[in-house]
Amino acid sequence: MKDDCIFCKLANGVFPTNSIYEDECVKVILDAGPATKGHALVIPKEHYQDIFDIEDTTLANAMKVAKKVATRMQDVLNCDGVNIVQNNKEAAGQTVPHFHIHVIPRYKNDGQNILWDPKEPDENEQKALCEKLKF
Amino acid sequence: MKDDCIFCKLANGVFPTNSIYEDECVKVILDAGPATKGHALVIPKEHYQDIFDIEDTTLANAMKVAKKVATRMQDVLNCDGVNIVQNNKEAAGQTVPHFHIHVIPRYKNDGQNILWDPKEPDENEQKALCEKLKF
Repeated sequence: MKDDCIFCKLANGVFPTNSIYEDECVKVILDAGPATKGHALVIPKEHYQDIFDIEDTTLANAMKVAKKVATRMQDVLNCDGVNIVQNNKEAAGQTVPHFHIHVIPRYKNDGQNILWDPKEPDENEQKALCEKLKF
Repeated sequence: MKDDCIFCKLANGVFPTNSIYEDECVKVILDAGPATKGHALVIPKEHYQDIFDIEDTTLANAMKVAKKVATRMQDVLNCDGVNIVQNNKEAAGQTVPHFHIHVIPRYKNDGQNILWDPKEPDENEQKALCEKLKF
């Protein structure tokens, strides 16, 4: 646990939460500022800042729990879809520097738009980018 | 492979792609309608419709690859952040019914806004929702 991290305190029971699931690796709580009814956060109990920092096994466990939560939402809330969103660093909208996965139930006409404006890139530019990124 | 699925064809080399990474489980390609420079898709080679459908090991592998791709983007593109987005069903913005993970490099002032409008829910309503979802 990191002393000044609120998500460490939420995930490890120092602060009370609306928790819907817990195991040895993660706690799942309702987001206090939800996009939609049921919006939940999968929070590892150990402190990792973001996806660059998190250890592979914890990442895999957290994602498998996100799947369970999505399935639970479909069963219980009758939602029409689910977004899984995981933001890294301020430029990507990360507000708390403790890795977490958003599981957001979606309903037809729920008024949210969690998408982007797609661009039409130049094919040569894409090819150059591809060469640069390849690993 | 599912016969009429374009992502099955892209992930398994039936159609050419701008591929940046490949292993036995997934192929990673540049998105043809990118949010930002370098926007990539992690696509399992086996056909799974969405997160409700995908098998746990493939899900874990795909997410671990998404981490590698995010790290590669940080190293090569000097981006300021990364969004991991995985959409399920039309109401959540899924356009191709073959499970995939978006890895979106973010740059300060890139003009994209992949977020939601947070609501202020009633605390009693949250508690009731929590009881309903708990598992």
